[in-house]
Amino acid sequence: MNYPNKIKKNYSKTINYANRGTTLENIITEANKYYLENNIAVIYKKATPIGINKTNYKEITSAYFKEKSTLDFVGIYKGYYIEFDAKETKSSTSFPLSNIHNHQIVHIKNILEHKGFAFLIIQINNSYYLLSGNLLINFINENSRKSIPYEYIKENCLEIKYNYIKGLDYIVSLNKLLEV
Amino acid sequence: MNYPNKIKKNYSKTINYANRGTTLENIITEANKYYLENNIAVIYKKATPIGINKTNYKEITSAYFKEKSTLDFVGIYKGYYIEFDAKETKSSTSFPLSNIHNHQIVHIKNILEHKGFAFLIIQINNSYYLLSGNLLINFINENSRKSIPYEYIKENCLEIKYNYIKGLDYIVSLNKLLEV
Repeated sequence: MNYPNKIKKNYSKTINYANRGTTLENIITEANKYYLENNIAVIYKKATPIGINKTNYKEITSAYFKEKSTLDFVGIYKGYYIEFDAKETKSSTSFPLSNIHNHQIVHIKNILEHKGFAFLIIQINNSYYLLSGNLLINFINENSRKSIPYEYIKENCLEIKYNYIKGLDYIVSLNKLLEV
Repeated sequence: MNYPNKIKKNYSKTINYANRGTTLENIITEANKYYLENNIAVIYKKATPIGINKTNYKEITSAYFKEKSTLDFVGIYKGYYIEFDAKETKSSTSFPLSNIHNHQIVHIKNILEHKGFAFLIIQINNSYYLLSGNLLINFINENSRKSIPYEYIKENCLEIKYNYIKGLDYIVSLNKLLEV
């Protein structure tokens, strides 16, 4: 369950390496803020899909978290359509594909087909990797495995470096994917 | 207040002209469905931003609708980043600019600067118009008016036609904006 807005409110600017293990979403949000303020990109987290059961005037009195069919972050960079999800895994040996819903896989394929860039940012073993949508789809098509081995990620994905000023500076890795 | 998911659930495929006055969001959603199924574009409505006060296990027991800082619909068409809002007005003489929050204006400017396409779809006098972000920003910069006169919209905006198979077929008008 995500409470993105609460996290945002409590978010301190003094991020340090000590908390990098627990705040993947925060260090991405920090990067997005840096990119926006420095006119590099406009990328933001979408609202969490919530289904509403009951309201009382303006107050929602009963609601529930819905399964996502798209990815968490969306935006534009150098005219490119960007959409991605942030995924943390506690496993040190592999990234479980159960982290991604079928609807999301379909959505990633659709984005790629229309010349957008869809990817995952994966945190594993205290490192960060950009797993492109193409690589993800290929892996699923070519393997019957239910998880992507860490060794495969290390060899095939783009590593993302944490920067204490910029946050998780994924655009450096994205540039390699876009070849810009 | 929007209840997009409830609307979606109750939404019937047998849209006709009788209800076109009350369902701008639905006829856009119908078009988006047509575009997706026919592999034309991937454009969808984002979740409504909701702030959560209280939860009880998986149930949200107190929450509220938040002010939007982005636009309702986002997606990709022919590699272009697309973001827009749907706006109905009951006034027959003008479109009140109070319909758009300041944060949204800033967001539109940012999208345009990064080579994306941001616009509004306006329903006025039972007609539909695509008001490009550029035209909107220019109007705001050059006028002290608090609304855009209907005559100005008719003369300067791209009209969008309702199609009983495709829904509100805004991509036809968007093509003129993109010059594709």
